[in-house]
Amino acid sequence: MLKATIDADMFREAIEAISALIPECRLHTDESGFSTRAVDTANVAMISLTLRKEAFDTYKATKSQLGIDLMKMKNIFGMADKGDLISIEMADNAQKMSVSVHGYHYSITLLDTNTIRKDPNPPTINLPGKIVIKGEDLNNAMKAAAVISDKIALGINPKDQTFYLVAEGDTDHIRREFTKDELVSLTPAEARSLFSLDYLKDMGKVMSKAEQVEIFLGIDHPVRFSFDIAGGNGHVEYLLAPRIEAD
Amino acid sequence: MLKATIDADMFREAIEAISALIPECRLHTDESGFSTRAVDTANVAMISLTLRKEAFDTYKATKSQLGIDLMKMKNIFGMADKGDLISIEMADNAQKMSVSVHGYHYSITLLDTNTIRKDPNPPTINLPGKIVIKGEDLNNAMKAAAVISDKIALGINPKDQTFYLVAEGDTDHIRREFTKDELVSLTPAEARSLFSLDYLKDMGKVMSKAEQVEIFLGIDHPVRFSFDIAGGNGHVEYLLAPRIEAD
Amino acid sequence: MLKATIDADMFREAIEAISALIPECRLHTDESGFSTRAVDTANVAMISLTLRKEAFDTYKATKSQLGIDLMKMKNIFGMADKGDLISIEMADNAQKMSVSVHGYHYSITLLDTNTIRKDPNPPTINLPGKIVIKGEDLNNAMKAAAVISDKIALGINPKDQTFYLVAEGDTDHIRREFTKDELVSLTPAEARSLFSLDYLKDMGKVMSKAEQVEIFLGIDHPVRFSFDIAGGNGHVEYLLAPRIEAD
Repeated sequence: MLKATIDADMFREAIEAISALIPECRLHTDESGFSTRAVDTANVAMISLTLRKEAFDTYKATKSQLGIDLMKMKNIFGMADKGDLISIEMADNAQKMSVSVHGYHYSITLLDTNTIRKDPNPPTINLPGKIVIKGEDLNNAMKAAAVISDKIALGINPKDQTFYLVAEGDTDHIRREFTKDELVSLTPAEARSLFSLDYLKDMGKVMSKAEQVEIFLGIDHPVRFSFDIAGGNGHVEYLLAPRIEAD
Repeated sequence: MLKATIDADMFREAIEAISALIPECRLHTDESGFSTRAVDTANVAMISLTLRKEAFDTYKATKSQLGIDLMKMKNIFGMADKGDLISIEMADNAQKMSVSVHGYHYSITLLDTNTIRKDPNPPTINLPGKIVIKGEDLNNAMKAAAVISDKIALGINPKDQTFYLVAEGDTDHIRREFTKDELVSLTPAEARSLFSLDYLKDMGKVMSKAEQVEIFLGIDHPVRFSFDIAGGNGHVEYLLAPRIEAD
Repeated sequence: MLKATIDADMFREAIEAISALIPECRLHTDESGFSTRAVDTANVAMISLTLRKEAFDTYKATKSQLGIDLMKMKNIFGMADKGDLISIEMADNAQKMSVSVHGYHYSITLLDTNTIRKDPNPPTINLPGKIVIKGEDLNNAMKAAAVISDKIALGINPKDQTFYLVAEGDTDHIRREFTKDELVSLTPAEARSLFSLDYLKDMGKVMSKAEQVEIFLGIDHPVRFSFDIAGGNGHVEYLLAPRIEAD
């Protein structure tokens, strides 16, 4: 059973954070809120998202799993205006979800959760370097690098106490160094790994709205991005596998 | 003979109402103003438009027929700024129309009216249900339905005194009910017919600018939309044939 | 050697004036500033551009030639915000240019100047008619004409003291006359030549930002457009060959 109302913008924020990586997901509901964990088809990126019941205006749910077509959700909620309230309702074991917004009543058929990949186990990785940065600064760096190349190295220079991003194109090169002053905080540790900008551009767009993003880095290890959504009542973690440095 | 000046926005409004259905039209001029009546190539939709001489700043015309390429007109008048005056001039039996706007002088070759379909006869249909609604509300409902399906049922529930729109997609469903409070007025009568959203989306865009749209409905009958343009000095009627309910 | 800083908008303005005609150019630097002269691949249009050292915040350069990929420059500087300062630095005989803007450091490989066409000689042409017009008016006329045709005649009517533009499409015709009152100035002389709108549309977009554009015209001769950029500390001349009037 599920019966909840939520601000259209907050729900859209959560949907967009997930749909940056995957077109459909298995959404877990229980009395504490919504959550999902999924890897993309190429097994390169993972998202963990929670949307706590405090993000909702009203919330009541029993333990369940919903198969969500994220593209369809984006199209439907693209119609909602800022400030609109979305009401979601579902009976036990129902195949359909009732959604009401701004006088419109939708009956949306859910995906069969058996057709959606099993939830991945969260890997235990030790990433010693940590940066806290404004989401907008991070996204701008991704956009600038994407003009030059399709991959980017993220690293920490412990001596200079800087966080750097370097992208090498066929003929050109871009480097951005953030000093401690430009960051919210920096936990220095030798760190440098190479990543695909295809993924980082999509993640960057989502993270650009976050006041602060925590970045965890190691040497030739995955990167973890961690940030709040829904006014602090939701949380997202992106994990992205490194690429091999080819030189 | 034709010699007239009109506000660019008013003329554009009339052109766009016609071009939502057809790419070219036969425009009738006489001393009382402009008028056209045409059906689309698929014989599914009909438009009747009048633009009274009161919509013009100056107007003088004898009885004549002009073959108008509406796409060309849209491209040309897309250049005009809000508040620009358009001057139109044509000699008797001329093949070319002189148009002046904002210092630009156009000579536009008319289409041969013999190549344009004959004016259709206005059908006499009895449509007992009537709704008066804000154009913007109507257009928003069309846009929301188009996310789910390519057809929509419009109906009246006489008991509840509501106007409803229902669209069924392959897996999903949307319903919007307008209570009497949300409408300008409602004349209750049992009514429900199914229509193609391809047409309604284009009509909806035009009608979104109308303060009020009258909708006339029956049971498995065409729908008629009736609304003013050009500040009340012009009028449009759209008639749209129903689709067969396939179930 | 080159070491200079310049407002991002000023540099972008210069890059866009050149890239309207050609994708890459040979940029000359010396102690007085930047300059380039180039013809497009079809040998129909020529640009001469100077950006004087006064356009820069700081400027120091020895005589040199740089092979510039203009599209790449546009992509990179598209990221810069209004008011950002761009720093450019190059060692003697270097193949790479260092560019810094808003914390981003680029290393950009230059093109081999041997692969770029030799600088054309400026032709000596006598064009007796001269018009000075607002850049925006000129651009609007190009856009209006492009709806009707792909070529346009520019001319002066010495008797009426007007500057006119005429475009003939397959069926339609547009004419715009600028009286002396609508122009900054007019030096009357019999003049009329036909030009390709493909080129004029691109040039028009650049010239639309110029307060004043000088136009020099003859009879079936090229047209020369002359205007300032970079707040008067730079200058552009476009020369465009006429088309043959086919009738």
